[in-house]
Amino acid sequence: MSHLEQSFSVKFEYKIFFTSSLFDTGNPIFSDFFKGRPSESVRKIFFVVDQGVADTHPDLLKDIKAYFTAHQDVQLIEHVLIVPGGEASKNDPILFEQIVEAVNTYGIDRHSYIVAIGGGAVLDLVGYAAAVSHRGIKHIRIPTTVLSQNDSGIGVKNGINYKGKKNFLGTFAPPASVFNDDEFLTTLTDRDYRSGISEAIKVALIKDPEFFYWIEKHTQQLAQRDTDTMNYLIKHCAQLHLNHIGGDDPFETGSARPLDFGHWSAHKLEQLSNFEVLHGEAVAMGIALDSAYSFLKGMLTEEKLLKILNVLAALSFNISDPIIQINDQQSPILLGLSEFQEHLGGLLTITLLTDIGTGKEVHEMDHELLIKASAYVTAFTQHYTSQNTIKH
Amino acid sequence: MSHLEQSFSVKFEYKIFFTSSLFDTGNPIFSDFFKGRPSESVRKIFFVVDQGVADTHPDLLKDIKAYFTAHQDVQLIEHVLIVPGGEASKNDPILFEQIVEAVNTYGIDRHSYIVAIGGGAVLDLVGYAAAVSHRGIKHIRIPTTVLSQNDSGIGVKNGINYKGKKNFLGTFAPPASVFNDDEFLTTLTDRDYRSGISEAIKVALIKDPEFFYWIEKHTQQLAQRDTDTMNYLIKHCAQLHLNHIGGDDPFETGSARPLDFGHWSAHKLEQLSNFEVLHGEAVAMGIALDSAYSFLKGMLTEEKLLKILNVLAALSFNISDPIIQINDQQSPILLGLSEFQEHLGGLLTITLLTDIGTGKEVHEMDHELLIKASAYVTAFTQHYTSQNTIKH
Ligand SMILES: NC(=O)c1ccc[n+]([C@@H]2O[C@H](COP(=O)([O-])OP(=O)(O)OC[C@H]3O[C@@H](n4cnc5c(N)ncnc54)[C@H](O)[C@@H]3O)[C@@H](O)[C@H]2O)c1
Ligand SMILES: NC(=O)c1ccc[n+]([C@@H]2O[C@H](COP(=O)([O-])OP(=O)(O)OC[C@H]3O[C@@H](n4cnc5c(N)ncnc54)[C@H](O)[C@@H]3O)[C@@H](O)[C@H]2O)c1
Ligand SMILES: [Zn+2]
Ligand SMILES: [Zn+2]
Repeated sequence: MSHLEQSFSVKFEYKIFFTSSLFDTGNPIFSDFFKGRPSESVRKIFFVVDQGVADTHPDLLKDIKAYFTAHQDVQLIEHVLIVPGGEASKNDPILFEQIVEAVNTYGIDRHSYIVAIGGGAVLDLVGYAAAVSHRGIKHIRIPTTVLSQNDSGIGVKNGINYKGKKNFLGTFAPPASVFNDDEFLTTLTDRDYRSGISEAIKVALIKDPEFFYWIEKHTQQLAQRDTDTMNYLIKHCAQLHLNHIGGDDPFETGSARPLDFGHWSAHKLEQLSNFEVLHGEAVAMGIALDSAYSFLKGMLTEEKLLKILNVLAALSFNISDPIIQINDQQSPILLGLSEFQEHLGGLLTITLLTDIGTGKEVHEMDHELLIKASAYVTAFTQHYTSQNTIKH
Repeated sequence: MSHLEQSFSVKFEYKIFFTSSLFDTGNPIFSDFFKGRPSESVRKIFFVVDQGVADTHPDLLKDIKAYFTAHQDVQLIEHVLIVPGGEASKNDPILFEQIVEAVNTYGIDRHSYIVAIGGGAVLDLVGYAAAVSHRGIKHIRIPTTVLSQNDSGIGVKNGINYKGKKNFLGTFAPPASVFNDDEFLTTLTDRDYRSGISEAIKVALIKDPEFFYWIEKHTQQLAQRDTDTMNYLIKHCAQLHLNHIGGDDPFETGSARPLDFGHWSAHKLEQLSNFEVLHGEAVAMGIALDSAYSFLKGMLTEEKLLKILNVLAALSFNISDPIIQINDQQSPILLGLSEFQEHLGGLLTITLLTDIGTGKEVHEMDHELLIKASAYVTAFTQHYTSQNTIKH
């Protein structure tokens, strides 16, 4: 038997900038990025914007045009593509085609840039279209939700849904750069704002106890949408996600997926609710369920479990919505386990908790114990609500 | 200004095996590949086969089934998808969807395999569908043409055409493994067989003078389709391509593309001929043109140029087809220059020759000199043909 061998490494590097008023002509951050990467040829820049952002920031397109009139490092393509926000952007294949079509029409090459401004869904769509057009056009992300600023927008994954299957098509494609502008967050609904906090709780629970206790101390400021508190949360959460991605397996070749703590049921819940339940809301429910399971399994103390449930409740996450309750072996939530396994490929691998800040992988989940964990969370909520009703 | 930084490297490794009768149950190479990567879960394997291969190898599907009955390391999905061979497979988006649909229907996960058996076009299609399904399913290539065994099939690129634009959608995605079986080559037409030899001449001319002189010595054996000679050519050519890819810029982030020597006009020619001219045939024409240009530019001696043209002619490549002739500034071939620049992005970067085995990048091409180079090649062919007619 004769053979040849190939072996090489590819280095990926990018920065996540934190700023306010990104497109104020006096703010050089965006333009400096291009100055820092001089080029012998003209580079074009094409913007795709989330409808929800365009609607709530009516001056945005005007500001972008003014910015590139003042800063001529790259050549702005005048036409800005607006796409619907939220999951709709990932469900409609026409939107993918519109971006590819723009690449064709405007002659956007691999030295040019496609920028996405929006929530995680729009970033996933645009990131995918950019990654496969001409085998990868440079992609800049400007995330505008809490979730996308602290998690999805700073990572390496993109994707669209295919016939209702979440992220069925996608790639691993690190961005050229990410710009987090805190002003975008001011126009989020309370639900969208809160929703993104659950990813911070998630990563704190598996990686960083100090950060969890910091969140525990700041639930009120977060509930009141205090800017400095949120800025700290986002930056710290982003750093934890970056550390994880930059670790052993950036492109997720193995079955372990610790950042998916709480997610096996969350994915199923989103789908069962027809995406009425937001991703972050579903994750909060999933965290509650798997934390209660960890306690009932004898891995986590009840004291720690109650800390977790109290933080979720203090942020007004609804963690015992009837939709998440697992009442018997026929509960559709339980199908989430096999779907999660299919999604990972290979062995079922679920992260549970042995402590606040410490995850542990298991390869099976006991359905009876899950029914009990669900009942525990429901009982906790009833107790919490009655207590807090009395207090007020 | 505050920022976070991300930086990581991803290692890619794969082997290219050379064998005969890959699916003979007595041949362990294919099955050993899976044994060498034990898994805790059941891995499925799904085959997509080039129609041109299925037609000329009527026992292939039966042999594959018998092979996986004898070797149970992976679970064969009984349904084998047959797709049209050649450029048609990259032009029809339905074929892409059929593969994605199969991933969905058969529950093919990221620990499973999608195998493509076929020419470069089918490998490009299947590689692309595998790369974006679930963000990347492991992909095994079994190239069945000279070109795909020595060049496209052992590299890191895939792609499909979009509205007639070549490779408009695609990714960089190294295969899990490649298996080159020389028996497939026996059923190629003479045109397809010869066509792939031009990529070997190309890479020899820019990287390896010894290899060029070896080809010069073996034109007759190659023309007569001698197996050992072709096996040597393929393996050596594959190694040169691997060395290049494994060098500085595997995923082609810069503008330099030395392996595209002779290709700026070739791409245009294929298109102008409605893909009647095969890729390798177009490359042979492109090599002749750019070598003649290198001579007229004073970079290459006429003696070396004539060696190159003689080798191409001895292999019966038609290097002065009217379609490649550049008669004046209005010649459509010249548009290939700006299209090539758009394809690369950034600066126009063309590789020329200063010697056999030595490429040199230039950033502009003189149209008048290209007209002269084209005339030189035509005159050479007339002379060569008359000489050879007299000899016979
Ligand atoms: N790629 C990844 O690694 C990754 C990780 C986690 C989640 N995700 C994906 O992210 C998506 C969820 O993202 P999300 O939580 O950011 O929400 P989203 O993108 O679904 O947006 C929610 C809503 O907020 C609107 N919106 C966005 N920014 C706004 C602003 N500044 N002001 C007012 N409205 C605004 C949008 O128009 C939309 O209606 C899901 O599709 C999920 O699968 C991806
Ligand atoms: N991905 C890359 O890096 C890369 C590099 C170079 C070329 N390519 C692509 O490769 C394609 C050309 O590939 P090709 O030259 O292998 O030809 P091809 O794939 O176009 O196939 C040519 C014909 O041969 C038939 N065929 C294939 N194997 C056969 C066999 N063993 N016996 C009989 N018939 C057989 C096919 O059905 C088809 O009709 C182009 O699309 C080109 O863009 C890709
Ligand atoms: Zn999440
Ligand atoms: Zn080629």
